[in-house]
Amino acid sequence: MALRHLISIETLTMDEWNDLYRLARDIMDHPGDYSDACRGKVMATLFFEPSTRTNFSFQAAMMRLGGSVFGFSNPSATSTSKGETLMDTIRMCSGYSDLIVVRSPYEGSALAASMYSEVPVVNAGDGAHMHPTQTLADLTTITAHRGGVDGLQVGICGDLRNGRTVHSLILGLSKFKNVTYYLISPRELALPNYMLTFLKQSGQKFIEITNLESCLPQLDVLYMTRIQRERFEDPAEYERNKGVYILTAAKMQLAKKDMLVMHPLPRVDEIATDVDSDPRAAYFRQARYGMFVRMALLMTLSKLPRQPEAPPAEKQKGLCRNPKCITKFEPELPALFIGEGEERRCSYCDAEIS
Amino acid sequence: MALRHLISIETLTMDEWNDLYRLARDIMDHPGDYSDACRGKVMATLFFEPSTRTNFSFQAAMMRLGGSVFGFSNPSATSTSKGETLMDTIRMCSGYSDLIVVRSPYEGSALAASMYSEVPVVNAGDGAHMHPTQTLADLTTITAHRGGVDGLQVGICGDLRNGRTVHSLILGLSKFKNVTYYLISPRELALPNYMLTFLKQSGQKFIEITNLESCLPQLDVLYMTRIQRERFEDPAEYERNKGVYILTAAKMQLAKKDMLVMHPLPRVDEIATDVDSDPRAAYFRQARYGMFVRMALLMTLSKLPRQPEAPPAEKQKGLCRNPKCITKFEPELPALFIGEGEERRCSYCDAEIS
Amino acid sequence: MALRHLISIETLTMDEWNDLYRLARDIMDHPGDYSDACRGKVMATLFFEPSTRTNFSFQAAMMRLGGSVFGFSNPSATSTSKGETLMDTIRMCSGYSDLIVVRSPYEGSALAASMYSEVPVVNAGDGAHMHPTQTLADLTTITAHRGGVDGLQVGICGDLRNGRTVHSLILGLSKFKNVTYYLISPRELALPNYMLTFLKQSGQKFIEITNLESCLPQLDVLYMTRIQRERFEDPAEYERNKGVYILTAAKMQLAKKDMLVMHPLPRVDEIATDVDSDPRAAYFRQARYGMFVRMALLMTLSKLPRQPEAPPAEKQKGLCRNPKCITKFEPELPALFIGEGEERRCSYCDAEIS
Repeated sequence: MALRHLISIETLTMDEWNDLYRLARDIMDHPGDYSDACRGKVMATLFFEPSTRTNFSFQAAMMRLGGSVFGFSNPSATSTSKGETLMDTIRMCSGYSDLIVVRSPYEGSALAASMYSEVPVVNAGDGAHMHPTQTLADLTTITAHRGGVDGLQVGICGDLRNGRTVHSLILGLSKFKNVTYYLISPRELALPNYMLTFLKQSGQKFIEITNLESCLPQLDVLYMTRIQRERFEDPAEYERNKGVYILTAAKMQLAKKDMLVMHPLPRVDEIATDVDSDPRAAYFRQARYGMFVRMALLMTLSKLPRQPEAPPAEKQKGLCRNPKCITKFEPELPALFIGEGEERRCSYCDAEIS
Repeated sequence: MALRHLISIETLTMDEWNDLYRLARDIMDHPGDYSDACRGKVMATLFFEPSTRTNFSFQAAMMRLGGSVFGFSNPSATSTSKGETLMDTIRMCSGYSDLIVVRSPYEGSALAASMYSEVPVVNAGDGAHMHPTQTLADLTTITAHRGGVDGLQVGICGDLRNGRTVHSLILGLSKFKNVTYYLISPRELALPNYMLTFLKQSGQKFIEITNLESCLPQLDVLYMTRIQRERFEDPAEYERNKGVYILTAAKMQLAKKDMLVMHPLPRVDEIATDVDSDPRAAYFRQARYGMFVRMALLMTLSKLPRQPEAPPAEKQKGLCRNPKCITKFEPELPALFIGEGEERRCSYCDAEIS
Repeated sequence: MALRHLISIETLTMDEWNDLYRLARDIMDHPGDYSDACRGKVMATLFFEPSTRTNFSFQAAMMRLGGSVFGFSNPSATSTSKGETLMDTIRMCSGYSDLIVVRSPYEGSALAASMYSEVPVVNAGDGAHMHPTQTLADLTTITAHRGGVDGLQVGICGDLRNGRTVHSLILGLSKFKNVTYYLISPRELALPNYMLTFLKQSGQKFIEITNLESCLPQLDVLYMTRIQRERFEDPAEYERNKGVYILTAAKMQLAKKDMLVMHPLPRVDEIATDVDSDPRAAYFRQARYGMFVRMALLMTLSKLPRQPEAPPAEKQKGLCRNPKCITKFEPELPALFIGEGEERRCSYCDAEIS
């Protein structure tokens, strides 16, 4: 089945990725050729949770293709605040638009939205679950600078426990060959078990490490993320540790001459501003690459014909227990599961079902 | 005089309606022919009261015609919050735009706006007074599905006392021939006297009824509206009654095979979700028809040349007593009345003057 | 150096002004020729402080040129509320857009923004400091109605002490020849000393006066501004004075037949509504002229190629003491000064350094 919605990076095939990257590359090289590519198309941006950066990136992408955008960026402005269900909001917006971008604090929202939409749906972040277009931005940046992803030594540094960005990135990188992962974090914020299990089962090479400087010389890519003080049970532990995970111009002297420094932004102080002028600092270019690959995605999806909504034919029995799952907030949504026995997971939010 | 502003459905002639419908029909059939129809045109959407659905519909309509939109959707963001009058806000926006869409909690706002604008003004809802483009959406849905409106048996169910949607709809339907009205509501929420008087004086056939099921088999169209618990003096009365006015798949078995189920949306629970998959459920299509007829309207009005503002030459004596009339909030607005003696009404809000 | 950013009216040369006016004039005369002039261009409007009027004017200007707009109009919606610096926000938006319009309560924000942007930056108001596009609107209005600015007798009435609009206007007018200034205000709200010094040093003719009526017959242009009650130490003084500075139809009988009445808007009660129908009342047309000259500006700037960001090479020593200077809120910004000794001023906010 060809790409219709983008809900998770997991389901994107290498062919689909290659098509997207090729198109993004051509847009970067010949932007003038694409300024009418989405002429007459209208995109709805439904941000049930504020996100200036992601919202702007999607809007700018559609506008550069000659398309238009309507939507909301504030949960209090939504019709759901009048008691309307997500399904009904999606059905209305699907009638008005050619493509829907949805961001929500509830996990599984994007999948739920896609079931009730006549037009393609893109997940712009659903709680702590997935953020696939951030991963597209990350992979585009690496590919543009390094020619590809295969065989790279990738350090991921900071809070690896929380945060969809890191988990989505690992799922994305794992589609390529022979990537080595350096997972750099305090023990309290290490990668969760199910992600470690995934890395093992899919035969990835990885190393867990608490110190940035010791592995810095090996890295081709260093992906920095923010460590939030409030994630630590003991604030003193945070104070003792935080310097270890701050990248500075001094530390950059240890790194390869062509190492890429990446960050999903916004950064607070985990990358010192004296790194900004280093040519290896790619984080602002990364945001711009994100816009270009979103252009490729929006152009691809907004051309697809409308299709009748397709909610699941049969309701399944069961109950997802994740308190942030969209099914907790939309009681009319049918329960859906994948896998069997201990592997059984909620189709919406991927939470394991006990 | 040709259509310049759309303030009330009452003043729309059958010729103007036919032109709008014909254009809307052609847009639906050949959308690609219209993607540049409003190129270079700019619409201002002034929502002094939030309304996601109506706002999105107008925005999507203008964008699909190749035009652009600026505006606000939140009363606190307006310059009136800095002490500017509605008239001055309209004059400013009229200088910047080719067309103004205005929504306000104050009755008569749209007429007031039209007097100080150099460009056409469309009423997107003024308090409990009028909502003419909702009626255009309703009439377009009926005409598209049934070939016309003449001779239909139309049930209107729910809260008939409050709500501009129902009153505007009846004014709209009354322009056609031989419509029969089934007015289905609890007695407390029956159609107001002045609307009943209108139906009688204009020779319409109608029946007031408290039970939905008994008349369901006769209907060609069933227009559902929401009953709000807080409209009842006695909450127990609400609890006893509410089930009667909820449409379910079971009740739909009583209805004609081609009856249309309509609703202005958002619905809460007055239409059970098990009706959604019934092919007779037209309420989501109705929203989409609303966008197309708004496209026809915006295309027609935005082509008109600018005209100098035309406030009334002479001030009339008198005072409207409706506490929600725009004249209460804009003391500089000249008082204006129509009719004589007991028929005397405020020109802005249509309230009777005692 | 050709125009790249518009931060202050002070640095605009007469050649640049003449080019802008000529282009604005042509846009007014042949608007259809420009509806694709910015096709494919995207403008970011970053309003860290709400301003309906200025924001709408910029948006409408870009849209009439066929370009698109994204942005925020509300400080709470910004990523700076997540702890991101202004510099990082600008770098992100500069990656997404072709032109940035910035409004901020902090003085010097626009200059700071321009240092970290790869695309042109326009100052849409930085605290009480500058508002150069308002002055462009003012000069365009005068030039369009009077053929030019040289030799005019210009009255400026109201609160001359506070308010960037008046100070920017005087800086703008001073570029022309032989302008005479009538500075009409209560003594408490007279023009500040540094502005008076500027007028003297640049050899301008001016007279300070507390009474409007006495000089009204001499004026070619009367620029009204609002007097806010809260600016007076003694409210009784305000009550005694306010009538003197209110323009009415009666007072207009004293004025020349072709005198222009101007106002930056919104007006509250400093111009009575009975002046509105006087053909000399230019304040609503002035808002429209503002849109046209912004079109000329946006068209000129958005065509410029991207340039790498250019923060100052060397940090200077010193500290601006203006509590509203942007350097107080962005500690990473390098201190920058111009002038020497007593003339030393902060480059960002122009505050004198003691």
